[in-house]
Amino acid sequence: MSNYWNPFVQKLDPYVPGEQPKDKKYVKLNTNENPYPPSPKVTAAIKEAVNDQLRLYPDPNCDELRKKIAEHFEVKPSEVFIGNGSDEVLAFSFMTFFSAENPVAFGDITYSFYKVYANLCSLSPKIIPLNDDFSLPVDAFCEPNGGVVIPNPNAPTGRGLPIDSIRRILDANSEHVVIIDEAYIDFGGESVIPLIKDYPNLLVVRTLSKYSSLAGIRVGFALGQKALIDGLNTVKNSFNSYTIDRLALAGALAAIDDDAYSKGMAQQIIATREQTIKRLENIGFTIIPSQSNFIFASHTEVNAEVIFHALRDRGVLVRYFNQPRISNYLRITIGTDEEMDKLVEALKDILN
Amino acid sequence: MSNYWNPFVQKLDPYVPGEQPKDKKYVKLNTNENPYPPSPKVTAAIKEAVNDQLRLYPDPNCDELRKKIAEHFEVKPSEVFIGNGSDEVLAFSFMTFFSAENPVAFGDITYSFYKVYANLCSLSPKIIPLNDDFSLPVDAFCEPNGGVVIPNPNAPTGRGLPIDSIRRILDANSEHVVIIDEAYIDFGGESVIPLIKDYPNLLVVRTLSKYSSLAGIRVGFALGQKALIDGLNTVKNSFNSYTIDRLALAGALAAIDDDAYSKGMAQQIIATREQTIKRLENIGFTIIPSQSNFIFASHTEVNAEVIFHALRDRGVLVRYFNQPRISNYLRITIGTDEEMDKLVEALKDILN
Repeated sequence: MSNYWNPFVQKLDPYVPGEQPKDKKYVKLNTNENPYPPSPKVTAAIKEAVNDQLRLYPDPNCDELRKKIAEHFEVKPSEVFIGNGSDEVLAFSFMTFFSAENPVAFGDITYSFYKVYANLCSLSPKIIPLNDDFSLPVDAFCEPNGGVVIPNPNAPTGRGLPIDSIRRILDANSEHVVIIDEAYIDFGGESVIPLIKDYPNLLVVRTLSKYSSLAGIRVGFALGQKALIDGLNTVKNSFNSYTIDRLALAGALAAIDDDAYSKGMAQQIIATREQTIKRLENIGFTIIPSQSNFIFASHTEVNAEVIFHALRDRGVLVRYFNQPRISNYLRITIGTDEEMDKLVEALKDILN
Repeated sequence: MSNYWNPFVQKLDPYVPGEQPKDKKYVKLNTNENPYPPSPKVTAAIKEAVNDQLRLYPDPNCDELRKKIAEHFEVKPSEVFIGNGSDEVLAFSFMTFFSAENPVAFGDITYSFYKVYANLCSLSPKIIPLNDDFSLPVDAFCEPNGGVVIPNPNAPTGRGLPIDSIRRILDANSEHVVIIDEAYIDFGGESVIPLIKDYPNLLVVRTLSKYSSLAGIRVGFALGQKALIDGLNTVKNSFNSYTIDRLALAGALAAIDDDAYSKGMAQQIIATREQTIKRLENIGFTIIPSQSNFIFASHTEVNAEVIFHALRDRGVLVRYFNQPRISNYLRITIGTDEEMDKLVEALKDILN
């Protein structure tokens, strides 16, 4: 706190990312990273870009990458916006599309950064409680809102939303932007990208962090009709012209090109997830159905916070949120089969 | 323009970066990039970081880099903020320290992004005309302001500001933050970093883009007392947790370590600058005294816009700003001696 701060800064309550431990080597199942390395074609492309050209600014418009993404998702390059991770894309989206006059709506159990963005933009969000089983109360999202943000599948629950429900929400909110945050869509969800041509109010947000194993290079993007993308570019170019560096551009291009590699890894993660769910259910956990690369688990007898600390002591990091309704749940990233063995072993030891 | 945009977005007038041409190879003297490649130690360090760890998020706090920068500049790690280029650092600074109630002051001839940031933050800046010779009217900056932003040396003029003048401005504005943007300080200016310990209102902004030949990896930083840095972190962590990727972190660490390399290149650029100034004066140019890696030049007879286009036709890109007071000037980045030969040759051809 300081007198030099703009008064609104005093009221901000920043996002707290999952721990990136430095003290020792953990089985790291706390930040939904992909357990598999990026495609060898991606690392080769980045290495090739590590050259004397680093003295030059990158392309501020990311034209080549936008073209590549457009081809891959069958939209136009003018319907693609690139950002420094999907977090930056979401921050720009809140700034561009939502205003204090019309409260933006999102769930009470959702990606916790949405509330932080709302705060940053001095918005009073309309927070809609999810149903008891953490499914989305679609009707409530169809009442008058000043915009909507929904992750599909939801974080931290992993629960997916049927495309028909999203269509209803888009129809009901035709005057305002509906953001569908598809950070985890490639682990079993159904994308609404094909709806973009029909809905001028739909913005789909994606990231290379999870599906493409590239959390380390920071590339996210948004797809939507040109008017929405133009708005994002206006705000971005009033903030920072060059948000994506030359190496991230090279890596992202190669990652979109080698989609087959990411798809193969995602299938492996889905298989591991289904097996892990069975193993955890066998030792007394209840698991929310997941379409993601993580699961949201609660034990029938032992408190989640107790398990969280006991796992940490045994070298396994998971995510625990000390907040209403979910304080007895753990969010567990799906790692390799070997990592899941270590998780189950540690859990058996704790629950014994 | 779209009904989906927040009304304030309709009023934004984004920054226009210098052209990054793709049509053919130019002698590129338009965006103040360093003509020399980054240190071989930097490219080696980045290559080493291109590995399977890219699947993991980077350190959101950039602890190692902050420690390295702190050691280099003899401040504490808690006095260092890292951003995605100095443009992002400046954007966060405007959001954190300036408010609509107290107009932030900057010059009329200055880095044109300041006005864009002010717009983005809905601030009405107090724009202070520079003197006729483009020197800073120090007294005017000592009148009551809600904050001050000054590049030293100034862009696009290249003119430096004596440290005593900055001290006067800091004393007169003790209630508000004074940002000294030292993007170009290493080409002959005198840094005010040693004043940080005495001035809680001083924020110094730096970039690796020019001095370290790393425009392509996007790393800038701010130095100031802890209360200012804490404010920047609060805003940054309400916007995007992971702004600096793993490769940029690796490159930046190596660049700070190999400062001797950058210093050598800067000395070469200064030598080339002084020689270029003489050569241009010989063919009728007037040059503002420069402490930067660019010069601001006006011809006594031929109009700057005419020269700009004629240079472009001859494969030489420089920067032309079509705005009051400087519409007869060209900003010319100092390249290699060979590039300057081509510039002078093209100019002689044009002026013949």
